[in-house]
Amino acid sequence: MKIAKVQDVTAGPVKEKDAKGVRMRILMSDKDGAPNFVMRVFEIEPGGYTLYHTHPWEHEVYVLEGKGIVRQKGKDHPVEKDSFALVVPDEEHQFVNAGDKPFKFICVIPATKPRE
Amino acid sequence: MKIAKVQDVTAGPVKEKDAKGVRMRILMSDKDGAPNFVMRVFEIEPGGYTLYHTHPWEHEVYVLEGKGIVRQKGKDHPVEKDSFALVVPDEEHQFVNAGDKPFKFICVIPATKPRE
Repeated sequence: MKIAKVQDVTAGPVKEKDAKGVRMRILMSDKDGAPNFVMRVFEIEPGGYTLYHTHPWEHEVYVLEGKGIVRQKGKDHPVEKDSFALVVPDEEHQFVNAGDKPFKFICVIPATKPRE
Repeated sequence: MKIAKVQDVTAGPVKEKDAKGVRMRILMSDKDGAPNFVMRVFEIEPGGYTLYHTHPWEHEVYVLEGKGIVRQKGKDHPVEKDSFALVVPDEEHQFVNAGDKPFKFICVIPATKPRE
């Protein structure tokens, strides 16, 4: 069993090209004994965004704080605290901070896939 | 893509014997096209608790609201908003509301396992 608070986990910058103002914490992964999936928390600063991209695995997202947009093929889907979003495998997507405070969300991915 | 708010999903009672005051919402699952894992939100009312049990799959838990306890072999681990907990396969565990308001948390499980 691993129990902690999110602020106990160091946040690292997401250094992908075409991403801006994004930090990530890996809360639980195969390194902790979780065989199937990885829970991360992303924090996007105002004006920031993740890479617009696609990959062959899903995201399960739950918004914790702030206001954001899930962008897909030019369409913007607004999200806020207690919104959730499923991005199925191979769907294009981007997460954008649409407010003036940090936009924080959980994003779960399979353990067998890259973590960023 | 599926985007909604948690309150848009109907909460169903968890009818397990030896559980009390527990409701669950299934936010995203294989039925929505997520091949690997299921995100649920649990809400335990004051005085309530989940079944003390074990199973051969992991839980990845993130606390959204309230105060709770993760109980294991007579030891109580307090959790609150922004706490997270990994229960690895075959670990005994129980979630207990330790406050006077609802105790709400996300709990992710593999898609290939039973959902309750």
